[in-house]
Amino acid sequence: MSASKFDVAGIGNAIVDVIARCDDAFLSNNGMEKGFMQLVTASQADDIYAAMGPAQEQSGGSAANTCAGIASFGGTCAFIGRVATDQFGKVFAHDITSIGVAYDTVPSDAGLPTARCLILVTPDGERTMNTFLGASTELGPEDVDGDIIAAARITYLEGYLFDRPEAKAAFHEAARLARAAGRKVALSLSDAFCVDRHRSDFLELVRGGVDILFANETEITSLYELNSFEEAAGAVRAEAEIAALTRSEQGSVVISGNETHEVPPDSVDRVVDATGAGDLYAAGFLTGLTRSLPLETCGRLGSLAAAEVISHVGARPEKDLQKLVEDSQILAR
Amino acid sequence: MSASKFDVAGIGNAIVDVIARCDDAFLSNNGMEKGFMQLVTASQADDIYAAMGPAQEQSGGSAANTCAGIASFGGTCAFIGRVATDQFGKVFAHDITSIGVAYDTVPSDAGLPTARCLILVTPDGERTMNTFLGASTELGPEDVDGDIIAAARITYLEGYLFDRPEAKAAFHEAARLARAAGRKVALSLSDAFCVDRHRSDFLELVRGGVDILFANETEITSLYELNSFEEAAGAVRAEAEIAALTRSEQGSVVISGNETHEVPPDSVDRVVDATGAGDLYAAGFLTGLTRSLPLETCGRLGSLAAAEVISHVGARPEKDLQKLVEDSQILAR
Repeated sequence: MSASKFDVAGIGNAIVDVIARCDDAFLSNNGMEKGFMQLVTASQADDIYAAMGPAQEQSGGSAANTCAGIASFGGTCAFIGRVATDQFGKVFAHDITSIGVAYDTVPSDAGLPTARCLILVTPDGERTMNTFLGASTELGPEDVDGDIIAAARITYLEGYLFDRPEAKAAFHEAARLARAAGRKVALSLSDAFCVDRHRSDFLELVRGGVDILFANETEITSLYELNSFEEAAGAVRAEAEIAALTRSEQGSVVISGNETHEVPPDSVDRVVDATGAGDLYAAGFLTGLTRSLPLETCGRLGSLAAAEVISHVGARPEKDLQKLVEDSQILAR
Repeated sequence: MSASKFDVAGIGNAIVDVIARCDDAFLSNNGMEKGFMQLVTASQADDIYAAMGPAQEQSGGSAANTCAGIASFGGTCAFIGRVATDQFGKVFAHDITSIGVAYDTVPSDAGLPTARCLILVTPDGERTMNTFLGASTELGPEDVDGDIIAAARITYLEGYLFDRPEAKAAFHEAARLARAAGRKVALSLSDAFCVDRHRSDFLELVRGGVDILFANETEITSLYELNSFEEAAGAVRAEAEIAALTRSEQGSVVISGNETHEVPPDSVDRVVDATGAGDLYAAGFLTGLTRSLPLETCGRLGSLAAAEVISHVGARPEKDLQKLVEDSQILAR
């Protein structure tokens, strides 16, 4: 195995978030399921945007958020995902490279605009997402740079990639290349509805293709079609090498073989916007793994990053996460 | 004089703000004067953007921010300003109409992109602005809808319009139409460097063309080329019908004839981003004027709106300003 140029290579949809506040009635009036992500067409996206209040735009995308978080922790990271040659594409490329993530995917000029996610944030801080995948669907296996994957300790893949056949092929190609290079593969299940759409594929990956699994409570119970978190945790213990299961205000549970670590959440004054909580938890956890820290410490770094991102609007860290680690007692334990 | 369909008609540059945090060294290394606005070319804007950290995008523009604030107070408002037919233009149009401002200026397809303002926010909350005017420079007198101006109690103009001859002509046309319809005209001096570029024009307007003048301390002292705020306040008293002079953490001073009202600022826990403070002060003040409230109360509404906007990132109100008024004791006095 050659030297590791990157701690993590992330592959996912390259998305610009369009974030507005709304009340709960707006969600039900517009047929949205609170707290989840739904895919929308270009015209549905236009209709939702027209109905939404004033918004702000900020780069997003699940795996891309995780990469930005790892960079903020001081890690080295590469991201693979496709934008268009439009203003939002330039915004996405600027934001991810300016935080220090290597990003070289050639933008698409095929006509579909850069992907956008219309995010409605209710007063409780919960986010409900409507994603128009646009140019991000044009990612295919030919975009997966084998040199990057071989040079990364961990290749991190978002489950959302399974929503398009070409992106799914890119996912499998990346996982294959990583394994061939003796590297680790991590998967985030992304969303309970996404799990529902691709359950058998995801189960197969957990049983053989991935080393580290990220899921929240609704995702892991959906994966195994079980009613309780405890049952689902038991099921994943038998199949995954490492599973990091997030439980919102209850923190996370890290499972590996016969190890179980219950990791408390970091306190926040107020949940301003839950967007990116899972992505940033993964950033902290993967940072810990690439530094060969104990699993419980990996979880604590996840809690720290998740707490930072939910305390403000937007899914990318505003504070320097490595500075927050230094100010905390996490590594002093 | 016909019925007033609008409380205020605002005319200004239609701009999308691109907001990033930086340290003070970034400003000096990139030749920026802290706290001020400079105009930049397209290629300068590209260079600054490449050097900036991750950013967020939010609609801005001085008079447009004021219009958004007036709408948030429950006032009726129209905005005139030009964007391009690109993604940022759609963002600008969405944000201003979705808060309830009438906005019908035809977008330009002449090739220049929608104006953007690269805003650097230092740890003290101060903002330093680099504006690429783009499509907003294509606003001309033909875009000033006489029906809108005649139907608005107050026409509000930003001094930044003077930076381009066509926009300056639009400014004069709007002021002429407003006076012809027996309406009031308000002017914001915008920026001390802007005052420096157009001092004689602005002095002429204060002496004859406008009824309400907004300026901060550096702008009013620059206008009269005097060293102290007190001297400049004395000079403007002799010339302007109403002058509302803002002084940052010292609040504002409202001058009219022999009246002087020293208005305290509203307290904020922390200045997160000073962008829009003056624009939102004007929104509160004009709201008070259109409701025929005493000048001191107008100033207090200005303080309330300014405090809201500096407590978060971005130059548009996040909270419902009318709700904040109702929760305050301002109108109960």
